Amino acid sequence: MTPEQMQSALLISPFHRWLQLTVVSVSEEALVLSLPWREEFVSNPNGNVTHGGILAALIDLAGLYTVLAAGGSVSATADLRVDYHRAATPGTITSTSRILKIGSRLSTAETYLRSLDGQLVASGRGAYLSAARSFAESAPR
Amino acid sequence: MTPEQMQSALLISPFHRWLQLTVVSVSEEALVLSLPWREEFVSNPNGNVTHGGILAALIDLAGLYTVLAAGGSVSATADLRVDYHRAATPGTITSTSRILKIGSRLSTAETYLRSLDGQLVASGRGAYLSAARSFAESAPR
Amino acid sequence: MTPEQMQSALLISPFHRWLQLTVVSVSEEALVLSLPWREEFVSNPNGNVTHGGILAALIDLAGLYTVLAAGGSVSATADLRVDYHRAATPGTITSTSRILKIGSRLSTAETYLRSLDGQLVASGRGAYLSAARSFAESAPR
Amino acid sequence: MTPEQMQSALLISPFHRWLQLTVVSVSEEALVLSLPWREEFVSNPNGNVTHGGILAALIDLAGLYTVLAAGGSVSATADLRVDYHRAATPGTITSTSRILKIGSRLSTAETYLRSLDGQLVASGRGAYLSAARSFAESAPR
Repeated sequence: MTPEQMQSALLISPFHRWLQLTVVSVSEEALVLSLPWREEFVSNPNGNVTHGGILAALIDLAGLYTVLAAGGSVSATADLRVDYHRAATPGTITSTSRILKIGSRLSTAETYLRSLDGQLVASGRGAYLSAARSFAESAPR
Repeated sequence: MTPEQMQSALLISPFHRWLQLTVVSVSEEALVLSLPWREEFVSNPNGNVTHGGILAALIDLAGLYTVLAAGGSVSATADLRVDYHRAATPGTITSTSRILKIGSRLSTAETYLRSLDGQLVASGRGAYLSAARSFAESAPR
Repeated sequence: MTPEQMQSALLISPFHRWLQLTVVSVSEEALVLSLPWREEFVSNPNGNVTHGGILAALIDLAGLYTVLAAGGSVSATADLRVDYHRAATPGTITSTSRILKIGSRLSTAETYLRSLDGQLVASGRGAYLSAARSFAESAPR
Repeated sequence: MTPEQMQSALLISPFHRWLQLTVVSVSEEALVLSLPWREEFVSNPNGNVTHGGILAALIDLAGLYTVLAAGGSVSATADLRVDYHRAATPGTITSTSRILKIGSRLSTAETYLRSLDGQLVASGRGAYLSAARSFAESAPR
């Protein structure tokens, strides 16, 4: 999958278009995305801190596309865990994700979010349900 | 705290205004919020499924305001866990949250998201760091 | 499933025998288990605090058997989240679990652990992978 | 902290002695522990699969001692997340942990558990509350 193909797949989602996500790099091992800041992200205007929900959304979607890039199939996110390490202030956030497990039923990926100065602002993991097995896969042989 | 006071506090956040959140009811035991659907929430246009990141954001913020309503202080979300149970399709989502623990350093709340037909679409829990102790609290007596 | 049947199923596991678990009650909605204290549970001898790993184990297994009691199938725990609310000191711990979702591929249950005085010492949730579909279920029709 | 000092600190806990934990290496960046198999770990005698609760306990404690090794203070585990990737069968498990954040109030570490053949059997993260600030730290200046 090329970054251009990943970018197209990503932007099918209206929410991803609203987030203005950009694919930085993609391989079977890792996916790097870039999230520019926008004013609607602000949780607390006192300090312009980005809402934890935006960071959670980035960890969810970055992990999901990492599974796809690694050749896994995904029908839905099963669950998500996010740890918040530092306040994220205005500026582009870069997510770096890698696979923990590609499974036939459930795949898991972990994602690290860094601010422009390289600080880890949040990190987490998502578990993703595989798409239903196709006829060929589920049929007896 | 009245629903009107909670509503005002909630809408200080630009992200909460974008989400168009409404306070349904508030007490020391529970907080109920309402999230109307908007097109930018869509993750997969094939079925108009709401993005898991939006549901994660709602679980994060609903738990945080539940801690505030219960008299706890919050400086930031420490971490978040979300379980996705069913696809959320267009229609208002109602969140119901309750306290697990109000702590002097960390408080925890759990939140359940239901679609209009009462189905549980997602649920989860957030842990929230208390605001720094004030001079009076931290000073020796 | 009667409490006696659940008790027998539970004690097939050597680890559950070591934990000396007892089934208090079982229904399709809830499972209540009892965990007596033993000296090997102690994490910190200064205060005889029970190790978080023991409480995590109880939340894992209680949720899994709750899914079984509700008629779900389980092949393995997919993931686990535990929140620790108070130190657990010597004395029986009671777990109360209920279903969040019985799914064809993944089921989720939440569990609350209380000390003898009724205090919530820990709580959490497990997600459980369903047992592989049988030939009949996976074969094309 | 030398491995010998860490080993002594670890074995103050009766539960850690029961687990028969060994410190393999310790630095400010990483902690490696070794967990030999014992029969009481078995969850399902059909295949001798190690109980998820034992792996959760290892992730909890390994992260906690990683925070201590990095110079952080810990009063208690705040919360824990474990992802199970493969069944763990009889044989030594090696845990490798590293710091995500050392905070003044909350620290976070992640841990990876591998079987003898190097396969990732489980991984996860713990958040740890710092020890209460001393008089000198909390007093006004």
